[in-house]
Amino acid sequence: MRNKITNAISDFFFEYETPRQVLVRNRRVGVVCRLIQLGVLAYIIGWVFIYEKGYQSTDTAVSSVFTKMKGVGYTNVEGVEKVWDVADYVFPPQGDASFVVMTNYIITEGQSLGKCPELPGKHNCTSNTDCEGGSFKRSMTGICDNTTKTCEVLAWCPVEDDHHIPEPPLLMSAENYTLFIKNSVTFPIFGVTRSNLVEGIDAHYISKCLYHPEKSPLCPIFKMGDIISLSGFNFETIAKVGGAIGIVVDWTCNFDLDVRHCKPKYNFHGLYGNPDEKDKARASVGYNFRFARHYFEDKVQKRTLLKVFGIRLDIIVQSLARKFDVIPTLTAIGSGVGIFGVATVVCDLVLLYLLPKRQFYKNMKFKYTDTHGQEPDSEAGSTETETHK
Amino acid sequence: MRNKITNAISDFFFEYETPRQVLVRNRRVGVVCRLIQLGVLAYIIGWVFIYEKGYQSTDTAVSSVFTKMKGVGYTNVEGVEKVWDVADYVFPPQGDASFVVMTNYIITEGQSLGKCPELPGKHNCTSNTDCEGGSFKRSMTGICDNTTKTCEVLAWCPVEDDHHIPEPPLLMSAENYTLFIKNSVTFPIFGVTRSNLVEGIDAHYISKCLYHPEKSPLCPIFKMGDIISLSGFNFETIAKVGGAIGIVVDWTCNFDLDVRHCKPKYNFHGLYGNPDEKDKARASVGYNFRFARHYFEDKVQKRTLLKVFGIRLDIIVQSLARKFDVIPTLTAIGSGVGIFGVATVVCDLVLLYLLPKRQFYKNMKFKYTDTHGQEPDSEAGSTETETHK
Amino acid sequence: MRNKITNAISDFFFEYETPRQVLVRNRRVGVVCRLIQLGVLAYIIGWVFIYEKGYQSTDTAVSSVFTKMKGVGYTNVEGVEKVWDVADYVFPPQGDASFVVMTNYIITEGQSLGKCPELPGKHNCTSNTDCEGGSFKRSMTGICDNTTKTCEVLAWCPVEDDHHIPEPPLLMSAENYTLFIKNSVTFPIFGVTRSNLVEGIDAHYISKCLYHPEKSPLCPIFKMGDIISLSGFNFETIAKVGGAIGIVVDWTCNFDLDVRHCKPKYNFHGLYGNPDEKDKARASVGYNFRFARHYFEDKVQKRTLLKVFGIRLDIIVQSLARKFDVIPTLTAIGSGVGIFGVATVVCDLVLLYLLPKRQFYKNMKFKYTDTHGQEPDSEAGSTETETHK
Repeated sequence: MRNKITNAISDFFFEYETPRQVLVRNRRVGVVCRLIQLGVLAYIIGWVFIYEKGYQSTDTAVSSVFTKMKGVGYTNVEGVEKVWDVADYVFPPQGDASFVVMTNYIITEGQSLGKCPELPGKHNCTSNTDCEGGSFKRSMTGICDNTTKTCEVLAWCPVEDDHHIPEPPLLMSAENYTLFIKNSVTFPIFGVTRSNLVEGIDAHYISKCLYHPEKSPLCPIFKMGDIISLSGFNFETIAKVGGAIGIVVDWTCNFDLDVRHCKPKYNFHGLYGNPDEKDKARASVGYNFRFARHYFEDKVQKRTLLKVFGIRLDIIVQSLARKFDVIPTLTAIGSGVGIFGVATVVCDLVLLYLLPKRQFYKNMKFKYTDTHGQEPDSEAGSTETETHK
Repeated sequence: MRNKITNAISDFFFEYETPRQVLVRNRRVGVVCRLIQLGVLAYIIGWVFIYEKGYQSTDTAVSSVFTKMKGVGYTNVEGVEKVWDVADYVFPPQGDASFVVMTNYIITEGQSLGKCPELPGKHNCTSNTDCEGGSFKRSMTGICDNTTKTCEVLAWCPVEDDHHIPEPPLLMSAENYTLFIKNSVTFPIFGVTRSNLVEGIDAHYISKCLYHPEKSPLCPIFKMGDIISLSGFNFETIAKVGGAIGIVVDWTCNFDLDVRHCKPKYNFHGLYGNPDEKDKARASVGYNFRFARHYFEDKVQKRTLLKVFGIRLDIIVQSLARKFDVIPTLTAIGSGVGIFGVATVVCDLVLLYLLPKRQFYKNMKFKYTDTHGQEPDSEAGSTETETHK
Repeated sequence: MRNKITNAISDFFFEYETPRQVLVRNRRVGVVCRLIQLGVLAYIIGWVFIYEKGYQSTDTAVSSVFTKMKGVGYTNVEGVEKVWDVADYVFPPQGDASFVVMTNYIITEGQSLGKCPELPGKHNCTSNTDCEGGSFKRSMTGICDNTTKTCEVLAWCPVEDDHHIPEPPLLMSAENYTLFIKNSVTFPIFGVTRSNLVEGIDAHYISKCLYHPEKSPLCPIFKMGDIISLSGFNFETIAKVGGAIGIVVDWTCNFDLDVRHCKPKYNFHGLYGNPDEKDKARASVGYNFRFARHYFEDKVQKRTLLKVFGIRLDIIVQSLARKFDVIPTLTAIGSGVGIFGVATVVCDLVLLYLLPKRQFYKNMKFKYTDTHGQEPDSEAGSTETETHK
């Protein structure tokens, strides 16, 4: 018994089976099949391996972004001069990846809780009966104000009048503000961490540089005006009514090369709109929110309401790293061999069904267990039988 | 020499090898093997290609979200009427993807820095010795207040009393607020950008519509009450103690179809809890944070402390796009051919080890270099030898 | 006609073709080839399947994070005692995934809009001509102040003096603050939702526990001092000038096991720097932003400017789940079979080109349609011809 197993193992190790093949010497078939096989080989090596880098596995990054604005704004509204620094025009102040730079505003000072008539044009009325009920947008008191001919509401008074958006925008100086972006990405599968302050981008360089798509594409300091124009917008338009701009930090890296070649690319585009469609580009324009500063005046709670029009900047990190990996390599080779098999099947079809001498090749290729279609169970066919003999 | 190479190349191009095969005419083996092969073929075409769309490559999106709340809240606490507008009840105000809508609050007005006794129940004492030391939570002065029998602390005084959460919640009107979501997604690999304001969702439609899961599933305006009920929660419960709700914007797109079919789906669920487990559903309930408004009163810095209970809404963008790609298609075909090869191996095992006529088939299939197991090195087997001859 | 089709179908189902093979009985070839084949098999089973879990498909999660700080800070600047609670030292207050804990600050109280000379050292001047023009950083009035010998600017006055950063940091007590992280992840493809409050981490446990990498790795409550030291920084250094720390919540899950084994791991590291390079580690140190509190004093708008130095904490969720899936399994098998085919090709090359008896094996393996290289079109080779007969 033990001998048997030893024999089987030695048989297994000392034997090797290889498929028997017909070598068809036919120019037409040969050329056609070789070309098909070379095509498949070219596809596997050229496209899958070289062009699409099928021997690499991919990874996307987790990232962290910190931003810092610099610059001072200046407004002169009816002779009142004001300066606006970072603490005043950036929301939120702590340097998030998504923030708003105020470029225009409608200020309503000294609001206090009370009852006052609505603005003309909203909730017009002729008598108190027009002001009955209410809505979730306003709490009406049911009284029609005789002077303005509008309903009286319970609200922060005086109510904000946002019919007229200041033009030109009050903070056109925002064009000269600068934005500093600090971005770090970690590719967890490859265990690589990179910062947008790559080699050569040191404190000295940062202190003087300004981003330019060609001249200094790695400088992490951006002028607001440049960001807007690179996104394809007009600064004054977007500064007046606000807008949403995405700054895409694109990390497309190949870690088969030195890690130093993994550098960010910055792209700018309007969010919420397809730049191809003229109509939709407008979707990115128009961004505002309301913001209140509360205070007490003579023990009465008051607030300053700001309707802020601004440029909302979203720092969007997009990443795709690639590195040689055994698994995708061998999967690509393995499935390439499979495709190669398909090529053989195609050639066989040509050989066996299309060529004039197909019957000859069929006989060369196939050996039949039985020529007459009878069941081989009858042991008659136990000697090798070949057709066309 | 050159001739030799030319010959080799012409040989290579004019020759074609194809494996020789045995055509076994046996009903049992034939049916079994054909069924196995058809099964593999059905799996590859039916499942991998049609059901799992194995001919497509996938991509996830980078996205940007902007939100805007609308609606006015109204409270009447002990006769004091107050209105709350967006600038007062949304934190942060600038329209982030994650924000809090205040639905209830505990207000502590006029706090100033100083020394005052703790609330009854916390740091009870009978004499000063009980109030020695301190902790990182409170700075104790070491004095036991005789009136309240609690330790005196250095803190913003008077200390906040948050034992009793107002019930019903003060801002039940939050149920009627509406949320507008603007979301844009970009699939970097496919180069497609989509906005949730898809075709047909124009300014006119938005001005009137309200999201309804069946009637208007694409309207980007949501009523707070609907969001909570679609998440499976009770509004009053969650409004009282706060809660965290996720609004998932699901972009599952097939870019082999027209890009217009790529539309978002909105789902709502409680965060931090598994809706299946009754116990864990509670994990999503209970959300609060403290927020202070600082002011000066008679040159003394004071603050109004708000313990805000609210609904935290996280707009979560989930995306998966698919598009025809040559690489996965050919990988699927290639590995399908491989699986086909496995089917052949299985059939061969049946043929060579299970059938009664296995010896016959073995002889048909295999040709031995040598019948007696002797080493072929002895050149004796240099002519073709076949067993059973 | 119909008969013909029936015949073709029955032929198809009752026939089965299997490749004919040569069984080479040669120790050297046998051993080499078997070892190659076993190697490929070991690679497929051992590496692709067992080690790399190639039978699983992967998914990354969408996540939601909520944070809550606890602890009270205490400062004593020139005899003025102050306490700082969560509402004062966390920016923003609502518990975002990315927030700043103030550890040091430069306060400039009572600023009002006006004209005042710059700080000594900035914009030095001897006469008004030195102060002409201006920059986007400051609005100069063109007057040289005689006392300070600096240009006068239109700004919030008095201007902030941030030359001296307080040392030791004013809020060293931040070391004892605690951070509570609530994190929920959803794997959309697998339909699994998990929270970092896993089984066993209930309200009772949370009330007492404190994170420790070995003793309580699942406790979601972290001491600030621990976070900094686990990131490899010195608390006092980072507290003085600020810094950015990432808390990575790592969800690496295998859903072939019970879902309860899917637990988070917490890692801590400095952002914006590579810990390997000593020079770059500094990139994570130094974080500050300016923040203003506006108020009215005697009807004049004033503000308190805070230059906040703090620890910015980014909760970064990193996720990778794996689960058995038919498609990758069969792709792995299929391409494994393909690799197997490559092994056979290699062995054939050895057999046909390297062995001394290669001509013998060539004749065994190949059958030629024609021995003399003439075109088989001449119908002369229509009977089976084998060389060496």
